[in-house]
Amino acid sequence: MRKNNYKRFGVVLLCIMHYALCINAASVLSPNGNIVLNFTVENGRPTYSMSYKGKEVVRPSHLGLELAKDKHASMGMDERDLMSGFSLDKEETSTFDETWQPVWGETRDIRNHYNEYVATLSQQWRTAPPKANGNIRLQPRLHRRTILIRFRVYDDGIGFRYEFPQQPELNYFLIKEERSEFAMAGDHKAWWLPGDYDTQEQETQESKLSEIRSQMKEAINWGNSSVAVFSPTGVQTSLQMKSDDGLYINIHEAACADYATMHLELVDDETDAMTTKLEGNSNAYTPNPTASNYELPQPFTFVSHLTPDATGLKGAMQTPCETPWRTVMVSDDARDMLSSNLILNLNEPCALDDTSWIHPTKYCGVWWEMIVGRGSWHYTNDFPSIQLDKIDWNKVKPNGTHKANNENVKRYIDFAAKNGLDEVLVEGWNVGWEDWANMWKRDVFDFVTPYPDFDIKMLNDYAHSKGVKLLMHHETSSSTQNYERHMEKAFQLMNKYGYDAVKTGYVGDIIPRGDHHYSQSMNNHYLYVVKEAAKHHIMVNAHEATRPTGLCRTYPNMVGNESARGTEYEAFGGSRPDHTCILPFTRLQGGPMDYTPGIFVTKLSEWSDNPSWARITLAGSLALYLTMYSPLQMAADLPENYEKFDDAFQFIRDVACDWDNSIYLEAEPADYITVARKAKGTDNWFVGGKCDENGHKSTIKLDFLDKGKKYDCTIYADAKDAHYEKNPQAYTITKRVVKAGDVLKVTEAPGGGFAVSLIAK
Amino acid sequence: MRKNNYKRFGVVLLCIMHYALCINAASVLSPNGNIVLNFTVENGRPTYSMSYKGKEVVRPSHLGLELAKDKHASMGMDERDLMSGFSLDKEETSTFDETWQPVWGETRDIRNHYNEYVATLSQQWRTAPPKANGNIRLQPRLHRRTILIRFRVYDDGIGFRYEFPQQPELNYFLIKEERSEFAMAGDHKAWWLPGDYDTQEQETQESKLSEIRSQMKEAINWGNSSVAVFSPTGVQTSLQMKSDDGLYINIHEAACADYATMHLELVDDETDAMTTKLEGNSNAYTPNPTASNYELPQPFTFVSHLTPDATGLKGAMQTPCETPWRTVMVSDDARDMLSSNLILNLNEPCALDDTSWIHPTKYCGVWWEMIVGRGSWHYTNDFPSIQLDKIDWNKVKPNGTHKANNENVKRYIDFAAKNGLDEVLVEGWNVGWEDWANMWKRDVFDFVTPYPDFDIKMLNDYAHSKGVKLLMHHETSSSTQNYERHMEKAFQLMNKYGYDAVKTGYVGDIIPRGDHHYSQSMNNHYLYVVKEAAKHHIMVNAHEATRPTGLCRTYPNMVGNESARGTEYEAFGGSRPDHTCILPFTRLQGGPMDYTPGIFVTKLSEWSDNPSWARITLAGSLALYLTMYSPLQMAADLPENYEKFDDAFQFIRDVACDWDNSIYLEAEPADYITVARKAKGTDNWFVGGKCDENGHKSTIKLDFLDKGKKYDCTIYADAKDAHYEKNPQAYTITKRVVKAGDVLKVTEAPGGGFAVSLIAK
Repeated sequence: MRKNNYKRFGVVLLCIMHYALCINAASVLSPNGNIVLNFTVENGRPTYSMSYKGKEVVRPSHLGLELAKDKHASMGMDERDLMSGFSLDKEETSTFDETWQPVWGETRDIRNHYNEYVATLSQQWRTAPPKANGNIRLQPRLHRRTILIRFRVYDDGIGFRYEFPQQPELNYFLIKEERSEFAMAGDHKAWWLPGDYDTQEQETQESKLSEIRSQMKEAINWGNSSVAVFSPTGVQTSLQMKSDDGLYINIHEAACADYATMHLELVDDETDAMTTKLEGNSNAYTPNPTASNYELPQPFTFVSHLTPDATGLKGAMQTPCETPWRTVMVSDDARDMLSSNLILNLNEPCALDDTSWIHPTKYCGVWWEMIVGRGSWHYTNDFPSIQLDKIDWNKVKPNGTHKANNENVKRYIDFAAKNGLDEVLVEGWNVGWEDWANMWKRDVFDFVTPYPDFDIKMLNDYAHSKGVKLLMHHETSSSTQNYERHMEKAFQLMNKYGYDAVKTGYVGDIIPRGDHHYSQSMNNHYLYVVKEAAKHHIMVNAHEATRPTGLCRTYPNMVGNESARGTEYEAFGGSRPDHTCILPFTRLQGGPMDYTPGIFVTKLSEWSDNPSWARITLAGSLALYLTMYSPLQMAADLPENYEKFDDAFQFIRDVACDWDNSIYLEAEPADYITVARKAKGTDNWFVGGKCDENGHKSTIKLDFLDKGKKYDCTIYADAKDAHYEKNPQAYTITKRVVKAGDVLKVTEAPGGGFAVSLIAK
Repeated sequence: MRKNNYKRFGVVLLCIMHYALCINAASVLSPNGNIVLNFTVENGRPTYSMSYKGKEVVRPSHLGLELAKDKHASMGMDERDLMSGFSLDKEETSTFDETWQPVWGETRDIRNHYNEYVATLSQQWRTAPPKANGNIRLQPRLHRRTILIRFRVYDDGIGFRYEFPQQPELNYFLIKEERSEFAMAGDHKAWWLPGDYDTQEQETQESKLSEIRSQMKEAINWGNSSVAVFSPTGVQTSLQMKSDDGLYINIHEAACADYATMHLELVDDETDAMTTKLEGNSNAYTPNPTASNYELPQPFTFVSHLTPDATGLKGAMQTPCETPWRTVMVSDDARDMLSSNLILNLNEPCALDDTSWIHPTKYCGVWWEMIVGRGSWHYTNDFPSIQLDKIDWNKVKPNGTHKANNENVKRYIDFAAKNGLDEVLVEGWNVGWEDWANMWKRDVFDFVTPYPDFDIKMLNDYAHSKGVKLLMHHETSSSTQNYERHMEKAFQLMNKYGYDAVKTGYVGDIIPRGDHHYSQSMNNHYLYVVKEAAKHHIMVNAHEATRPTGLCRTYPNMVGNESARGTEYEAFGGSRPDHTCILPFTRLQGGPMDYTPGIFVTKLSEWSDNPSWARITLAGSLALYLTMYSPLQMAADLPENYEKFDDAFQFIRDVACDWDNSIYLEAEPADYITVARKAKGTDNWFVGGKCDENGHKSTIKLDFLDKGKKYDCTIYADAKDAHYEKNPQAYTITKRVVKAGDVLKVTEAPGGGFAVSLIAK
């Protein structure tokens, strides 16, 4: 199904080669010709630039990697930088065009159509001759090594990566820093998160590139989420920008597997050195100019900045190998940013032989009431700290607030069964929550021992008898060694009781100490978990793990990730109303997010002591099931809160979470998104619109409907006086029959939205 | 069998308490009164001293730990040092006397007899009052926390440890450095290794304490083995010393499980600050005076120095917990250093319910010929590097030098079967040896895939048919995460084919990068392997793992360790002739060593291109089976070399490796050791003597033999003109019948020794 129909059409591209002086150059066009990629080797440095419809997107930018010195140099560890001294040995071009079907996704078919350009580059150098042998004078030794830079030019952007063939002169190396440059053509507006080695959960900042430095301090303090910031101009990917002349530009990466996650460090007028490492774990920037010979590029250039390991190094490589793809998406239509499949296409085809056990999932769970503070994950308050092997759980005093108890879980199972939800997440089911995070405690959980009030067999049997599954939860508290030690037995337990999905969590500092959430070793760990889970037919939804880069194409049992500021922050002081109008442009580029939408009672004080409130209307909450694409959709609010608004909850009952087609109707970053989606294997459509704090008027032409068919149309909209703060629960539900070509006009309230179901008659 | 018959006899000790000014003091005597331990709290600092027969052994020395600052301080991570401000709250004394039986050992019974003294110490401090509430003035908050220091006073030394009860004010903490002092009473002679975070394989240095600093540079270069030295006066434990007035003093530790291995840093006249961390991985010392307020003790004081993790910290602790025991052994008779069971006694009783599957083992193996360089562990020379998942091993070109091939292994199995050896070690049986160490390669081995020329089923079947077992080999190349990921399947493979023992290896730098061989996390790993192996009834012999501290009492499937300079160095340039007369005083204190003795053809050039030669006579090689106690004894030389000296090899066939009794007849560190041992469950005795480069005349009174019995006595001795360099293979074998009271006189050649078997008629 996802067989790779790779066909080489030979050189079909317009290739212009200048063999003059030190410059070789090639221009590669995208299939429709809108994007032009230029590549040259200029004074020995690989250099690329990129344009869209004649407009500069990336100005000439250098590519290369700095390598680290290592004590094993004499034993074959290569140390020479891969930055300069290159000559262009060979150029290859080809075209690729295939259509593949994802196991789950926004569309049934995905076209992967690009023109490819591969530059083979070599470095040569001489070292002193071996010691003279008698009267024979030996020649200096000539060394030569080769790397490839592979570009794929799509109609909606480019991807490039470094490839390191196996060869005697490049065998093992340590990366001090990757220096891929992205020179922007102007002072674009950007939606950015402070670059951070350990969190992605800050509020998005909106500013000109030139304002990033001045806005960083406030950005770090905002919501108090930053953990390990490394530079006054460091930002995260996916980075969405908009140029003054109306280009939408997005920088991210694809297929980041056994490699450190990339950040971007902006060179601006004040930059005098690039940061190279973080001293300690504080939020201090530590530019270290003496540690690098890196020559600063021009202002408005982003330079890649990888996440380090505990020793400050960015990666250990063994050839043959390659980096992830670095991606630059571009369009003059914001909707193209959302419909692009460039990241998925740059990933490898599905690696699993059997995917029949993977399914999109709607779920509810024992979760929100603890997040809000009305219940606890932990079972007892008897101990200042616990050691798992020293407690008889049947003898400790329950605290009375533990929510993962039989009675409460059954209530959720009943709710799921009644409303057609597939699974019920239960957090806090297993022993260890009494002191689980941030105390450098390695042996935190065993992932197999339930608290005494959670009867794992009874509850799974009960759920199965009602056609519902329980959804497992493995909070690792970032003690990855502990998780890897227990994982096989934990998965066996899941198989035994009939769980088929796990939500994992990585709250707190990484153990082993000194490592970071997005380092090479941690990225290897996250994928290791996904691969091991696949052997047990288990789907994985990893929270606090590294931001996704499309690996779900290759491992479609990776059905979700958090990796951004999710709904939980609505209980931690709240997120801005435009937050969900930004995420699809940024976080969602790499893969679906388990955003856990669906908060109906937005003022949490209505049912708890929590003064926080969600900055969204109820109709807006419904919209998220469409605008925030995911094969995994939670109905996050309490069953009793949904029961109060059962007519609105009907939409959550109805909405699909897997699609044959998706059409983005309207989009502007941080302002509004409107999308129509066709439910998989049906003729039914669903339309959702979500807007920022300013409201939005949406006009929806139903020209995507099947001609000749009629549809029962139900519109869940903000009431006239609805407002995310003043009147969030004011909504209207209207029903009519519509056909192709009809037009719907919906007004979205400030912080509001709408949802429409179109059921074929 | 090892049930702890703990009886408290109340206060049976001479306790003198001075309740005056700031001094509390107690004196605790050993059961025979020879050792006196004094403990005081002097100006708030816990202080101990120790004497033996009225002679000062440890002058007043402070105890305490410095804690690290941590970003989680506000969440319950304790940061206040445990160094000063203590008051003595409570003192408890008791006596303990039991006799227990080890699963294997030098004697059938071990007496554990000590007087115990426990000091309960508390710190109090006040913090600012909470914010005033209206007109009510709140009091400053009073804080109090408690630690215990537990001393056990034996007739042959003392042990003490810190204990941290669970309590609100001491819950989690990070150790910046343990500051246990050992103030020596004079400028003793010491046998020391340079303190090193990653190796214990240097040659032992012999010098006065005052000469350690000046001799360190040479020591580091010697044999080129040092890896991560941290101080110009840092040395390893077990540290053997001898005072000018004839006291033998040894400092080591016991029961180091989930805690960093201790080194000792000597304060001398030139010390101006204690080192606190190693910058980078170079052999540079980095004293960091600003990082510590530690007040320097007097010269000739050793201060504990723990092995750091990748961030430079020494440990993460959660109460209730305790440190390992710190031990000071002392006697005026060197033989007591060797017969002492203090380290074993300070460990916990056996934790395994069933030990029936654990057995002493004599083995040979496919090993020495690779160490010497006449064969290879790896199978092919086709690749500059390999990736396990990318090679079809059946298609690669064999290099022809791979020694773990069916034919060669069968030859060793035949040899073992013919000569009554229990097992055959095979190194290089599994894929991955082509590029296995020091390249920061994580996925080095899978521990389950044999090379094509190693038929794992056939060879195990063949061995079993001859009454022999194969001995598994797991070289991890220190990629511990990789080993832990594969370990369970590797042990399952062993169970499947009938292996019951594994030799593990930790060559090269630890992965994850930045960690060290003797850190808390690595010590946890080594023990994790032993515990997991026990579940599969597998015995473990770990090479390059941390030096043992008696944990084999608790986990007797830990049948051996290398953790010092073994026989392999005889092929790497050689070790000094006195090396094996030092190891029993130092390395062997914590547990048996897999020294792999038995080299008969000491000039390796006789059968290989290796110019190295072992500095030992053939008779000396036989002696090692007795003087280097281990339940695991290898006959390391090639079968064909043994066949040339079959009359001498008879001793290796005959000698036991488990004992009902052991009597050290003569001993002087670095000079000579003579021991008589009674084979377990028999009336047979074996006597061995080993000496340094000066030779030794041994007079052995056979008064340990059963009166009335006669014994066939075979004496394997150096010939008159034997010499470790000039004439190593000159030996004599003489036979006679002896009885109790007879006297044997044996002359040991320079670098020589002797072995005697006494078989009851």
